[in-house]
Amino acid sequence: MVTEDEAMRRAIALAARGLGTTSPNPVVGCLLLDAAGEIVGEGFHAYAGGPHAEIVALAQAGERARGGTAVVSLEPCNHTGRTGPCSHALINAGVRRVVIAVDDPTSEAAGGAVTMRAAGVQVETGVRRREAEQGNVAWLTAVRRGRPYVTWKFAATLDGRSAAADGTSQWITSAPARSDVHLLRGTMDAIMVGAGTVIADDPQLTVRDLKDGSLAIKQPLRVVVDSQGRTPEKARVRDVTAPTWIVTNREVGAGPDGRVDLNALLQALFGRGIRSVLLEGGPTLAGSFLAAGLVDQVIGYVAPKLLGAGKAALLDAGVATIGDAVELDLTDIAQIGPDLRFTASLRQKPSDQGAF
Amino acid sequence: MVTEDEAMRRAIALAARGLGTTSPNPVVGCLLLDAAGEIVGEGFHAYAGGPHAEIVALAQAGERARGGTAVVSLEPCNHTGRTGPCSHALINAGVRRVVIAVDDPTSEAAGGAVTMRAAGVQVETGVRRREAEQGNVAWLTAVRRGRPYVTWKFAATLDGRSAAADGTSQWITSAPARSDVHLLRGTMDAIMVGAGTVIADDPQLTVRDLKDGSLAIKQPLRVVVDSQGRTPEKARVRDVTAPTWIVTNREVGAGPDGRVDLNALLQALFGRGIRSVLLEGGPTLAGSFLAAGLVDQVIGYVAPKLLGAGKAALLDAGVATIGDAVELDLTDIAQIGPDLRFTASLRQKPSDQGAF
Ligand SMILES: NC(=O)c1ccc[n+]([C@@H]2O[C@H](COP(=O)([O-])OP(=O)(O)OC[C@H]3O[C@@H](n4cnc5c(N)ncnc54)[C@H](OP(=O)(O)O)[C@@H]3O)[C@@H](O)[C@H]2O)c1
Ligand SMILES: NC(=O)c1ccc[n+]([C@@H]2O[C@H](COP(=O)([O-])OP(=O)(O)OC[C@H]3O[C@@H](n4cnc5c(N)ncnc54)[C@H](OP(=O)(O)O)[C@@H]3O)[C@@H](O)[C@H]2O)c1
Repeated sequence: MVTEDEAMRRAIALAARGLGTTSPNPVVGCLLLDAAGEIVGEGFHAYAGGPHAEIVALAQAGERARGGTAVVSLEPCNHTGRTGPCSHALINAGVRRVVIAVDDPTSEAAGGAVTMRAAGVQVETGVRRREAEQGNVAWLTAVRRGRPYVTWKFAATLDGRSAAADGTSQWITSAPARSDVHLLRGTMDAIMVGAGTVIADDPQLTVRDLKDGSLAIKQPLRVVVDSQGRTPEKARVRDVTAPTWIVTNREVGAGPDGRVDLNALLQALFGRGIRSVLLEGGPTLAGSFLAAGLVDQVIGYVAPKLLGAGKAALLDAGVATIGDAVELDLTDIAQIGPDLRFTASLRQKPSDQGAF
Repeated sequence: MVTEDEAMRRAIALAARGLGTTSPNPVVGCLLLDAAGEIVGEGFHAYAGGPHAEIVALAQAGERARGGTAVVSLEPCNHTGRTGPCSHALINAGVRRVVIAVDDPTSEAAGGAVTMRAAGVQVETGVRRREAEQGNVAWLTAVRRGRPYVTWKFAATLDGRSAAADGTSQWITSAPARSDVHLLRGTMDAIMVGAGTVIADDPQLTVRDLKDGSLAIKQPLRVVVDSQGRTPEKARVRDVTAPTWIVTNREVGAGPDGRVDLNALLQALFGRGIRSVLLEGGPTLAGSFLAAGLVDQVIGYVAPKLLGAGKAALLDAGVATIGDAVELDLTDIAQIGPDLRFTASLRQKPSDQGAF
């Protein structure tokens, strides 16, 4: 027997397994409990076009769902997309009660709770809402803003350098930290760098197991922001291991500085179904994103080293004076091998609200 | 009743109260237990020239010390300095057993254990040694190297900036972090900055209560490293609130770069009884200290902010390529208000051993 609260915790954990493969859909987890509170089915939304979490759980539970309770991390959808509405499936299965963490904010999918209540199902919402929102933060933020959720990731020394005086930067951080970056990439829809990074480092930007080099099945879209199309023909980012978009001014338009218009770029990515972007630098592109107020989260891998010279982790973020510093709220600090990983969200300035 | 191990913990904690006021002596704490293991006396060495920890504890215990046990964080001294030898005082008081954490490494003071054993006192050494060594790390390192223990302290943003593009830096870190710096200063014999910092910021470099501005009774020596004597006549560091030494080339000699010879400077400070120095920057002087291998510990106050431009926290530390980065071992991370405080020791390179 599990409590509904425990069931929701599990549903949220299940949901997270879909990160990186469900876009443009959210991640969702679902548990089905019978009348005695025993788990009779569980599921998560694994990939866009695949069955929704509720459908997976219902299929597992079969007749045992009747009279039971569905515990879902997001309001069951009410619309017929690539799959039928989950609200109807739950009603038809005879579920007596539905417990929901977060309401669906999209106009197309919302209304599941209303539909189910009208059919006599008991619906409770808001159970572990904060936690479930956090689990879906990229998707929720993206649909609210009409642009992908952007995480800027950097690696630096304790004194904020991303490379030594002679340009060497391999490796600032440890093997465990670099493996952690590949796990992080695996949860993202797209990985983005500027042309400068491609030209300097020729990164592959894939999700790999660093021990044996094996590639993950699902690879995020590789995005190179490259106003003039300077990305070399032989750049590894152009290889066949993952899809790639070299974004030029011609394709999405230029901003007033003559470089790729970042707002237009993010809107184009949203249109392609991208809900989360891992911005991996370099310092110039990251500075432009921060200056434009287009970063939602920062993840810094900081090595306990000092360099005292060399490329800074961040350049020209549009901050002239100390009072205008970009302020962060640290949400997590973890030790990864000898390094530290900081996770922080951007403190919203009043003017940022509803920027889109 | 306390165990000898518990008593040693307390002795080490007591010792720490002397930090900042005992130099050129170490910090020492002492507990006296009677035969039943009850505490009958305790003391610490509070200031140079004042009574040693053992003497304070013996005075408190009086006759109850007879047949008891002395628990001391450092080997009782065996020499007659400004006070008589503690070894004799313990023998005369009839103490039956002496428990010691760390042996005295100095030729003048060592020998207390031998003397006491010869007088029939039971002596055990090495109890909580690591912890006691940590508590006395500045003094122990200083006497081993013949120069003060140097802690470089800096304040920076997460991207390693110590000031914004327009030079403003007040305040990068929060009020709690700045108060923490004053506590740290209070544990040091000297506070050091370069001429650049004095000219740019005109700091007072005193130990104050930031709430009411009141000054601590004991103020560390203020040291300005100023090859050509550029420190302005009206600089606050010259005021009467604390002793100050403006160090010019003329006084201690210049290095090959024409600036103050840092090895000579540290030796001169050691000669003046200074065992611990808080190097508060700026980036140029800190870089020179690091390049010369003269930093023992780093304390960084890092604010969860990004600047993307402005003065770096550290300049020219003599590192040209990534493999030569200065490597640190993090020993502590603490949240101080919204900021983080990193404490790290320098990983010794083989060539550093016995540099003096
Ligand atoms: N430690 C780390 O985390 C990390 C991560 C990545 C890179 N790096 C280092 O960063 C260095 C490369 O630095 P970088 O600053 O030159 O690279 P970058 O930020 O990757 O690329 C900057 C380039 O992106 C292009 N771009 C297009 N639209 C832009 C816009 N709106 N705003 C800004 N840039 C735009 C510009 O070139 P066009 O005008 O030609 O388009 C610009 O020069 C490498 O040495 C690399 O090792 C470090
Ligand atoms: N955030 C922080 O933690 C922090 C702390 C302190 C300062 N700061 C900032 O740092 C800035 C000042 O930077 P800075 O680098 O000019 O200041 P600095 O490091 O305090 O001073 C450097 C000066 O010290 C003198 N010096 C003498 N002997 C030296 C030697 N052996 N090696 C190096 N320097 C020696 C040199 O001037 P001479 O050749 O004339 O002697 C040199 O120019 C200010 O803006 C201040 O706000 C920040």
